[in-house]
Amino acid sequence: MNKHNRVVATLACCIIFIQTFAQNKIVVFQTDFGLKDGAVSAMKGVAMGVSADLKLFDLTHEIPAYNIWEAGYRLKQTAQYWPAGTVFVSVIDPGVGSARKSVVLKTKSGHFFVTPDNGTLTLVAESLGIDSIREIDETKNRLKGSGDSYTFHGRDVYAYTGARLADGVIKFSGVGPLLPPKVVTIDYQKPVFENNIIKGNIPILDIQYGNVWTNIDKATFSKLNMQTGDQIHVTVFHNNDKVYEGTMPYATTFSAVAEGKALCYLNSLLNISFALNMDNFSAKNKVYSGADWSVEIKKE
Amino acid sequence: MNKHNRVVATLACCIIFIQTFAQNKIVVFQTDFGLKDGAVSAMKGVAMGVSADLKLFDLTHEIPAYNIWEAGYRLKQTAQYWPAGTVFVSVIDPGVGSARKSVVLKTKSGHFFVTPDNGTLTLVAESLGIDSIREIDETKNRLKGSGDSYTFHGRDVYAYTGARLADGVIKFSGVGPLLPPKVVTIDYQKPVFENNIIKGNIPILDIQYGNVWTNIDKATFSKLNMQTGDQIHVTVFHNNDKVYEGTMPYATTFSAVAEGKALCYLNSLLNISFALNMDNFSAKNKVYSGADWSVEIKKE
Amino acid sequence: MNKHNRVVATLACCIIFIQTFAQNKIVVFQTDFGLKDGAVSAMKGVAMGVSADLKLFDLTHEIPAYNIWEAGYRLKQTAQYWPAGTVFVSVIDPGVGSARKSVVLKTKSGHFFVTPDNGTLTLVAESLGIDSIREIDETKNRLKGSGDSYTFHGRDVYAYTGARLADGVIKFSGVGPLLPPKVVTIDYQKPVFENNIIKGNIPILDIQYGNVWTNIDKATFSKLNMQTGDQIHVTVFHNNDKVYEGTMPYATTFSAVAEGKALCYLNSLLNISFALNMDNFSAKNKVYSGADWSVEIKKE
Repeated sequence: MNKHNRVVATLACCIIFIQTFAQNKIVVFQTDFGLKDGAVSAMKGVAMGVSADLKLFDLTHEIPAYNIWEAGYRLKQTAQYWPAGTVFVSVIDPGVGSARKSVVLKTKSGHFFVTPDNGTLTLVAESLGIDSIREIDETKNRLKGSGDSYTFHGRDVYAYTGARLADGVIKFSGVGPLLPPKVVTIDYQKPVFENNIIKGNIPILDIQYGNVWTNIDKATFSKLNMQTGDQIHVTVFHNNDKVYEGTMPYATTFSAVAEGKALCYLNSLLNISFALNMDNFSAKNKVYSGADWSVEIKKE
Repeated sequence: MNKHNRVVATLACCIIFIQTFAQNKIVVFQTDFGLKDGAVSAMKGVAMGVSADLKLFDLTHEIPAYNIWEAGYRLKQTAQYWPAGTVFVSVIDPGVGSARKSVVLKTKSGHFFVTPDNGTLTLVAESLGIDSIREIDETKNRLKGSGDSYTFHGRDVYAYTGARLADGVIKFSGVGPLLPPKVVTIDYQKPVFENNIIKGNIPILDIQYGNVWTNIDKATFSKLNMQTGDQIHVTVFHNNDKVYEGTMPYATTFSAVAEGKALCYLNSLLNISFALNMDNFSAKNKVYSGADWSVEIKKE
Repeated sequence: MNKHNRVVATLACCIIFIQTFAQNKIVVFQTDFGLKDGAVSAMKGVAMGVSADLKLFDLTHEIPAYNIWEAGYRLKQTAQYWPAGTVFVSVIDPGVGSARKSVVLKTKSGHFFVTPDNGTLTLVAESLGIDSIREIDETKNRLKGSGDSYTFHGRDVYAYTGARLADGVIKFSGVGPLLPPKVVTIDYQKPVFENNIIKGNIPILDIQYGNVWTNIDKATFSKLNMQTGDQIHVTVFHNNDKVYEGTMPYATTFSAVAEGKALCYLNSLLNISFALNMDNFSAKNKVYSGADWSVEIKKE
């Protein structure tokens, strides 16, 4: 091995060394805290105290207060776009201080979710699959000196544990004991095709524009044999009360209908959605979202 | 070469190696999506999937829905403060799914702008100069598996392409074919001095405080030969309708006038602006901003 | 020294080298600018222009316009959770252009605060202790080419100086001349125990939920000898006017009282706080916060 080779070999080792250091170390935070106070910043400070190599991001901090359903939807909507290994810390926690468990879910897709197990995991457990779940052992995974604080587990337990897991200070096994592989779930209407009707749920609004998103996927929708331009009959229920009924074309661009007119389209998650071109379908028709909103669609 | 020298040489190589890695890799996102849902986070997840070495920032996600003019102004306002090489991904896209082109503008200043070419580039093309423009070739620059989605080019095309460009996965030439060096533009009143009057546009409000910003730069303003304390006559038009007329001193600090009184000052971009000390000029006088707002000023 | 040893030694040097590079380089920004315009992004662009190795975070940009008190509170609330060496850039600056000094405070905890000295530092100076204060020498610490701009010191002076300090371009001594070790302060009711009554201030609301936070710490509160479940009598004053009077239990979880009922608890900063379970104490009782809000509590 001559000098040149030695340098090359050493550089190669350095590269390997740096690569090893360069695991993704990504933490994505979600809360219902808003951004007006210091709560989110305190969580990030704790994470940076664990390791300044971490890369911290936000999903959203504008989840409506205590809205576990929406928190779960946002995780499902976005987690698939983040690399495997990403650690999500989600703190929508109306039961803080009560008996709900603090857990980390590892999905089959290799993502991690650090959260109270209060229904937040309903949708990602379904869509990404449960690999395993561990309960956070707070005797080991809790910010030092925070034992007197009863109400900010987001900072003292979840941000701290998520940061340690993302940085490799602890492995997944270091989170705490394994739990049975199931999560607390919230009931809702799954997409089903029956008698030429598809039933589904309205999990969420595209609130910036007032578009109404269903959970009816492209495969289920295809059973109606709709072509672009075909008319579709839509009925919306809140619990069992009919809130909206109407007919609109199936389109691939908003500009396919006149301004203010309704259309049915596949949204960016490839789910059936309803919109008014350049207007707000939700506000105009008082159609909102959640586990208690459902929809029926059929070919006109 | 003794052992010490060898170590020094190797370290020097390491430093060079790390430096090479340390190109700026900065991506700055702007949208009209707001931060309440997962859209911005999904875009960032896609970018992190391209490379976890990228550094992701936000310009704003609170551009009013479909407001292309304001999007263009925000780019102009801020791009100059970011290092050359920074990649801006701007998604205000009322025409998504229609015929507008998806492009990357490289400016003479060395900044990159990834956006639909719908007027968003009007002001940066002017202020930073067009080096060259390429159309995004979606057959190469589109997130794998996203071909079925018609409506979220921000995530599937713009974030993905911007991240690849910033990380060096593709060079600028890899974006797609060169276009003629001009962008879609929005008309507005440029600053002109004529007969002792300066005409200009009100591109934007300093909305947090209600201050009114014009596009009248310091050089043009100097033609009025105003000294601090001199009175200035201001008339504001929306399209051709007079909305405001008044007189105020030219001042260098807000506290130069009593609380609630109007002043004229050079803002942080060195443009002529109007404010009420500790109050909201825009709301009080119903003066707003956009390509269709103009102003005339003269020495009293 | 054989080849293996040489490689190991070189790698060790690399690690040391990388460690040295890996000082925390963290900058945390706080303003009253909001996130709708480009001001915060321009500040971050300036920081990235100083060094792309910096790690930029936000405390909040939603401080109510000109609210120096709240700015100071947010710093106190969060700084302790960030690692020593973190540089906070706080720009709530109603006196921009007037005679207030631009300073950097180094606290005994090793944190740095770059800000106008206008009262913002009242609470961190108390809680973290003053190590030393320097006035920013703008002849050295000002973005090149920004000398003509009178109104955006946040970008041209504070972001620029904070970034240079965090990156090590300048040491603390390079900020400018030492000032006497005291800061401009805002008066408020400190927590005191007298005649079985504790007096204190309401520095802030937990606004997302409407909870009312006092500055009465756990040690002072312990002088009332309250047990969980004991009743506490609370009176709130705005200046000298009584705004609220009521009785509530001392509890460790919100669910200890019925929905809509009041409780008194230790918040995440271990300060006495008041809340309605699943409702908004502040809005219901018109109790707000600031230096001019005070409270008296005693055992019922």
